[in-house]
Amino acid sequence: MKPSDGFLRNHHAARSAIEHELGALFQARTDVAQTYGKNFVRLWALARESVLGGKLVRPLLLVATYEAHRQAEHAPSENGCAQATVIRIASAIEVLHYSFLLHDDVIDGDLTRRGRPNLIGALLAEASSAPDTEHRRPISNIAASAGAELHWARTGGILMGDLLLSSAHQTFARACIPTATRLQLLDVLEHTITESVAGEQLDVGLGAGMIAPDLATVLTMSTYKTATYTFELPLRAAAILAGADSPLSDALAAAGRHLGLAFQLQDDLLSTFGDPREHGKDAFSDLREGKQTALIAYARTTAHWVDIEPIFGRTDLSTQDGLRLRELLVSCGAEQFVRLLVDEQLSSFLQLLDTRPTQIPDHVRCVLVDLATQLEGRAS
Amino acid sequence: MKPSDGFLRNHHAARSAIEHELGALFQARTDVAQTYGKNFVRLWALARESVLGGKLVRPLLLVATYEAHRQAEHAPSENGCAQATVIRIASAIEVLHYSFLLHDDVIDGDLTRRGRPNLIGALLAEASSAPDTEHRRPISNIAASAGAELHWARTGGILMGDLLLSSAHQTFARACIPTATRLQLLDVLEHTITESVAGEQLDVGLGAGMIAPDLATVLTMSTYKTATYTFELPLRAAAILAGADSPLSDALAAAGRHLGLAFQLQDDLLSTFGDPREHGKDAFSDLREGKQTALIAYARTTAHWVDIEPIFGRTDLSTQDGLRLRELLVSCGAEQFVRLLVDEQLSSFLQLLDTRPTQIPDHVRCVLVDLATQLEGRAS
Repeated sequence: MKPSDGFLRNHHAARSAIEHELGALFQARTDVAQTYGKNFVRLWALARESVLGGKLVRPLLLVATYEAHRQAEHAPSENGCAQATVIRIASAIEVLHYSFLLHDDVIDGDLTRRGRPNLIGALLAEASSAPDTEHRRPISNIAASAGAELHWARTGGILMGDLLLSSAHQTFARACIPTATRLQLLDVLEHTITESVAGEQLDVGLGAGMIAPDLATVLTMSTYKTATYTFELPLRAAAILAGADSPLSDALAAAGRHLGLAFQLQDDLLSTFGDPREHGKDAFSDLREGKQTALIAYARTTAHWVDIEPIFGRTDLSTQDGLRLRELLVSCGAEQFVRLLVDEQLSSFLQLLDTRPTQIPDHVRCVLVDLATQLEGRAS
Repeated sequence: MKPSDGFLRNHHAARSAIEHELGALFQARTDVAQTYGKNFVRLWALARESVLGGKLVRPLLLVATYEAHRQAEHAPSENGCAQATVIRIASAIEVLHYSFLLHDDVIDGDLTRRGRPNLIGALLAEASSAPDTEHRRPISNIAASAGAELHWARTGGILMGDLLLSSAHQTFARACIPTATRLQLLDVLEHTITESVAGEQLDVGLGAGMIAPDLATVLTMSTYKTATYTFELPLRAAAILAGADSPLSDALAAAGRHLGLAFQLQDDLLSTFGDPREHGKDAFSDLREGKQTALIAYARTTAHWVDIEPIFGRTDLSTQDGLRLRELLVSCGAEQFVRLLVDEQLSSFLQLLDTRPTQIPDHVRCVLVDLATQLEGRAS
């Protein structure tokens, strides 16, 4: 669920302001971390690399939508406090996103992201290559050294996730805005976290076989787990900061959820059928992990499932089996079905943008349609 | 680091107000959780049981200290908003405490606390006893069912920890107080979380053999990991809410850190030498886990270490070996040494309470000395 690099390519100034804000945040936290020693500083350095290496889609969506609201209202130029607050809240959303990714990686046991070691993978590599010292000896009594190092690395992921989740809240809590606006933003933040966590629980429950993997549940999970914080949160926050009324904020949020689900379904298609050099994941990782996607939920209802089930989710999936699974997911109609679902979500999105009586301003509409266009670019 | 049941026994009204506040918080969150299904509701129900089953030492310390500040100033009676805010912030500190416990339990792989299943243990037991259904079959391809259930349970621990960490921040962010006061409280919250996380990282690094377990490092870890959030946070928050000046808040925080370390060291003694029926842990769990306590750090510097090292941290530690380790920790002088450390921290605490020029009001002093007295009760 990562809109492509070209998204919002005209927002150089916003990107630069967000990067500057994030850089300052990490610098301040790193300065404090010095008190607590090199391992704690290292944790912040790794998090900084990941956050600043991201595409910043969510904060850019917030800033672009906010600016579009302002243009639509022909609003007078703002004071510095208001501008700084928008950039800060936008940056906090990127920090929140990364804290979710970190805990997601801990939960899934992932050591890489976008084809490179993630924070956990980097900590593991560093711990494994550190020279043995006197005090490491006692560990041999307890567990294999590799186990201790993985434990250390995963702990780093949990703890940095906690620090960044806290940091995102701190930014919302300190926002230089009227109390009523702050409380509205805090409501959206609480709703977002509740729904994202519920989505993550559903995802793990589906993967662990605790919850029946029917199509409706899989689609609900995708909406909760990613569409909410990736689209609804920035769109609602932009509306609140721009002083838009609640029916408009609700209409944008509803449209955003459809767009978010379209991106997630497109992402499932890319992960399964796309070029791993482009999506940065292992070619068959979703199939090997037994990830319950809409593709699999559809396939399960077809006659081809008897051929798919024995190889789907095998940790030792061979390239040959992976290619065979792909063919089966095409021939059973799952690929075509999910492409139709993407189109359907896009139609619902466009329809909501044009629904009366809530008039979505043209400038805001343009930002969202521009974002949706990126989806088509990825589908090709 | 759990002051005994008798602590603040005179604060029935405060306890009841805190329990009422926590009850209302969990009820509101449970109502929202209904939207997301029974597994999500169950997570909130389990968290509620744990939080409301706790001793509420930290929030009671906050409320008692706050009231003592007000009495010292002969302050006029407050408006309802101020009273409600104190109870809310106090309750949020209990929620923060439990979020730390949850992530600590995930990190340590613990399934029990106070002799009963913790949230993770309860989720595991429920998942293991659930009847097998159609959709659980595919899991047999991937992992043993027990593995999937533990994964589900641990994920619940991570996610509920995230929700409660967020909840604590929400309460601070929404506090009905002047902006300057809110920012001061947010500073203390940020400092507390940074230091507690740094302490947890140090603890895991010591256990995993990544960090040399010398006495100074072990004492620093104990201070960061527990003294800060258990004593410094409530004491500083009470001072800020009561409008005390910063030198007084700093003096209380410094005193609180000594008292916190005394409690933690006392807790190490109780876990190793105490009656498991009283401390609620397995009799030899610290010794079996290879926990790097001040006892072990001291023992390592003695001639007895050659006898201790081969059995310390063995996962298959027998009762006989456990009893032998206890004897060795006494005969090498470690027990006596740690008792002296407790006394030393208590002396430093009392000395700081009486240090001029910062005058700690008598009422506030009484609350803290009353708390310290509980420590002596536990040592007997």
